[in-house]
Amino acid sequence: MSEYPAVTPEFLAAARGDAPADVLFRGGCVVNVFSREIVKADVAVFGGRICSVGPGILARRTVELGGRVIAPGFIDAHMHVESTMLPPSEFVRLAAPHGTTGVVLDPHEIANVHGVAGIEAVMRNAGEVGEQPIDFMFTLSSCVPSCHLETSGAELTAADLEPMFDDERVVALAEMMNYPGVVFGDPGVLEKVNLGLRRRIVDGHCPGLRGAQLQAYVAAGISSDHESVTLDEAKEKLALGMTIYIREGSAAKNLEALRPIVNERTASRICWCTDDRHPADLQHEGHIDHIVRKAVGLGLDPVTAITIATLNPATHYGRRDVGAVAPGRWANLVVFDSIDNLSPCQVYFKGELIAEDGNYLPQRAHTPESIRSCFPEPSVILPENLDIGSFHVSAPAVGARIRVIDMDPTQLVTGELHIEPLIESDSIVSDMARDVLKLAVIERHSGTGNIGLGFVRGFQLQRGAIASTVGHDAHNLAVVGTNDTDMLIAAKALAQARGGQCAAVDGAVVALLPLPIAGLMSDQPAERVIEQQAALLDATKTLGCPHHDPFMPLSFLPLPVIPKLKLSDKGLVDVERFDFVPLVCDRVEEV
Amino acid sequence: MSEYPAVTPEFLAAARGDAPADVLFRGGCVVNVFSREIVKADVAVFGGRICSVGPGILARRTVELGGRVIAPGFIDAHMHVESTMLPPSEFVRLAAPHGTTGVVLDPHEIANVHGVAGIEAVMRNAGEVGEQPIDFMFTLSSCVPSCHLETSGAELTAADLEPMFDDERVVALAEMMNYPGVVFGDPGVLEKVNLGLRRRIVDGHCPGLRGAQLQAYVAAGISSDHESVTLDEAKEKLALGMTIYIREGSAAKNLEALRPIVNERTASRICWCTDDRHPADLQHEGHIDHIVRKAVGLGLDPVTAITIATLNPATHYGRRDVGAVAPGRWANLVVFDSIDNLSPCQVYFKGELIAEDGNYLPQRAHTPESIRSCFPEPSVILPENLDIGSFHVSAPAVGARIRVIDMDPTQLVTGELHIEPLIESDSIVSDMARDVLKLAVIERHSGTGNIGLGFVRGFQLQRGAIASTVGHDAHNLAVVGTNDTDMLIAAKALAQARGGQCAAVDGAVVALLPLPIAGLMSDQPAERVIEQQAALLDATKTLGCPHHDPFMPLSFLPLPVIPKLKLSDKGLVDVERFDFVPLVCDRVEEV
Repeated sequence: MSEYPAVTPEFLAAARGDAPADVLFRGGCVVNVFSREIVKADVAVFGGRICSVGPGILARRTVELGGRVIAPGFIDAHMHVESTMLPPSEFVRLAAPHGTTGVVLDPHEIANVHGVAGIEAVMRNAGEVGEQPIDFMFTLSSCVPSCHLETSGAELTAADLEPMFDDERVVALAEMMNYPGVVFGDPGVLEKVNLGLRRRIVDGHCPGLRGAQLQAYVAAGISSDHESVTLDEAKEKLALGMTIYIREGSAAKNLEALRPIVNERTASRICWCTDDRHPADLQHEGHIDHIVRKAVGLGLDPVTAITIATLNPATHYGRRDVGAVAPGRWANLVVFDSIDNLSPCQVYFKGELIAEDGNYLPQRAHTPESIRSCFPEPSVILPENLDIGSFHVSAPAVGARIRVIDMDPTQLVTGELHIEPLIESDSIVSDMARDVLKLAVIERHSGTGNIGLGFVRGFQLQRGAIASTVGHDAHNLAVVGTNDTDMLIAAKALAQARGGQCAAVDGAVVALLPLPIAGLMSDQPAERVIEQQAALLDATKTLGCPHHDPFMPLSFLPLPVIPKLKLSDKGLVDVERFDFVPLVCDRVEEV
Repeated sequence: MSEYPAVTPEFLAAARGDAPADVLFRGGCVVNVFSREIVKADVAVFGGRICSVGPGILARRTVELGGRVIAPGFIDAHMHVESTMLPPSEFVRLAAPHGTTGVVLDPHEIANVHGVAGIEAVMRNAGEVGEQPIDFMFTLSSCVPSCHLETSGAELTAADLEPMFDDERVVALAEMMNYPGVVFGDPGVLEKVNLGLRRRIVDGHCPGLRGAQLQAYVAAGISSDHESVTLDEAKEKLALGMTIYIREGSAAKNLEALRPIVNERTASRICWCTDDRHPADLQHEGHIDHIVRKAVGLGLDPVTAITIATLNPATHYGRRDVGAVAPGRWANLVVFDSIDNLSPCQVYFKGELIAEDGNYLPQRAHTPESIRSCFPEPSVILPENLDIGSFHVSAPAVGARIRVIDMDPTQLVTGELHIEPLIESDSIVSDMARDVLKLAVIERHSGTGNIGLGFVRGFQLQRGAIASTVGHDAHNLAVVGTNDTDMLIAAKALAQARGGQCAAVDGAVVALLPLPIAGLMSDQPAERVIEQQAALLDATKTLGCPHHDPFMPLSFLPLPVIPKLKLSDKGLVDVERFDFVPLVCDRVEEV
């Protein structure tokens, strides 16, 4: 874990006021996360670290705050940077203006594509400690692949993870999603948990887990969870000692439901996290600052909301050098006009102004070329003989029903429908009238040639097809469409772009968001990615899809660990049975 | 630091209720230190660790609690076991019945006598992890010797301390008492601080430090303090991020003054500690349980008082495996009749009943012989030619005044008086009429022959002398008396006993408490030590001393780092000048 920075005589001289500090923030109202009060004080910084918080002392330079509020920089306790479609070096450009000075990244998505090399690439792009104006912390992905029911690009064992714990930026074993594996004592899972406990701590992920199984999961030493969706669930977990991360991201939004768990007594047991945050939301709505504002809007005391955003994640991850405006800590600071307007005016990292009025100030640390050079050579390997016939689904016996995934664009959980398919010639085809569209998941990592074929209701496309190489967790290529030609064209376009998301119609690609970094992230500036994504989403509207972002539900349809019916490259999965099921229902099921 | 215990399939099976737990504590009211509520729940234990807190599960054995309160075992966040006059193996017998299941020991006193060997001896006597029914944690003594103005038995550098951090029981560098050394950046001191920060954390000790110097001390990364005596001082330290240990020991009692700092918002930033606790107080009044009861008496919510006694020190020292009644944590538990009667009825350590109704249940782990075998060979080396003449103080010029230490038996701080001495023949002698008694501090570690001679007001002895080899911090032999003969006899008696405290009168020793372990601790059972001490204190009353325990102020008179006038083996020290001063005042001072 990150070492507490060593103390030097020069730093102490500045702290005493015997030698000038570098900067003095004068006349501010400091958010004190220890007493949970706002107090008038001057903040002095030397060598990037706060050396004094109290009466003003000697400094080479002064920043007049004129009564404005100064708080610690925000920390996202858990997120996957891949969902921003940006590598860390670009992510920081969107996050920092929102007051984010620290983030705990779980590079789970790229780990599923590139394994250890993927995690190391993200860490390489993030730079060494202090190289970028944000405190990148890492958790090591614990569940790659998600399970045996899909083909991922890599598999990570405890032995693979162990050497990476030597990196001081690593703060935990990442969310242990295989909660049945923990609860029922799977040896490989316990090996990873015990590794995490030995080297750091272990983050949790146990949606809906309650009662005896939750007791076992907590007993295993797993110390946090960010998957609670109901207040009762969160209360049960908190009472057992878990730190409760309240998640408010682009997909899952739990703040409103969980807000009542925060009170004066529990406040120190809570963190905020986004888990997944899309680039446009990050730019327009914000990051942790957005959660803080929303929480305050829901009646939470602002100082408590800020404490949860700062001291709490620092404490949870054993970081005593960040998370507070206090002597000895890094001068990661956010300035607000007032406590009633928590939109960051200025953001400082290690005492340097890095964002002002929403603008990121440092020069871009990376070009597209240098970003690409951080990461493994991208490739999307489709089956060699992929053609229109690859999407063919044979018609079943007359009168037979097929399993159809029932998708709700606001949920990761799906339903299962049994429907008589639309038959043309000897094939089952997409049926726009009933919104039953063909879905294919094509293995893209190692050329197995695997293609899972199925049907889904919910996208409402009337024309064309949309495709994505973001497809949790294995990130195979998922494509849904109204006809096989456009599905083929969309898939081939993504192979050519070496990853991304696209829409095709009438035999041509009409919008493409290239994601050449592992098929998950762009190498382009954040602003360009946001534009490309907006154009892509607009294009899907012209195909008849009414949803804001159909790629979000599309990317979760392959995930064979979230109920109920899913489609991986290996076939249709009944997650509750944790096994494959045929497309065509048997007679018993039809009844 | 102590590793989080590894999780096993058997433990998880018990947690799930699929295999019987070892014990089920049924029908209790659990003090939940996370939600800070009392909740009805059954507590199951397997392999010494809590595996379930909720509805009762299968267990081989059941303990019916019948609505009684069950709480985590108490942790003393900072104490010197030497002040109990007992080695750890005997200390546990007094502390455990009071609900203490963990204690953070700073073996500072023995470190001043025997250096690394002393610290290692205490750790050896404490046993390996789990060997004794208490969780012994250690901090490594940072300030040996206290300063250059006295002769200690050892000197500890950062290089001496470093290897001991490999012991997993070590949780911090111990209280950094040399706060001027920190504040002003003394290289040797910073080397130790940086070592502590690198390997663990650094505990503080900064009595009365405020303002700019406190900023520097905190900026150095020192994360706790237990020396606040006023509310304002504690508030200032808390606001800067220090964990505030509220100390309530046998000598210093700060709870009443500091109680108001604890509120719902600050509760997670507070610990309790005793620092120094005498054996009789430990037995009769209690330990951390005494502080908890007193705090509740002062209006603190009992659940908060218990949280401060349990979760908070565990969290401060990074121990996630103790400090709560929660799955995964060691089953260190205290049972009370009700939340309104916080006297422990039963105490469990790792699920085993170790004390009931004030009685300690395990067999004594050590005999006097085995205790002695843990420690370095004791010796008290007095000057070879020590005789009555050694105590002679020559008379000054007629009319001259001498410096006299003004002792208040309830304070460590002394005053300085300038008084015309009582002269007999050519000597200054003790003057019982004005309560100005002769004081000698004799170097006892290496036979330097050093004897510091001075005078003190406050003991009110009318006859005889009292002597002690407990004499902070160097623990030289301190003797105060009405005549040189009894002083010599008392000193020689302690040399013969190889350490201890005694009273002599009319040429004979009348009471002796032998402390043959480093001259600080007994090798006898705790009960015997308490008897011996009571007899000794009774004897001092017969000499005219009205104080409950004159050995307490006597043992602090040599300490040349607490103002104002002190006497070390090297001479009279003006602590504010941080230098020696002559016994006889010069003319200017006499004015």
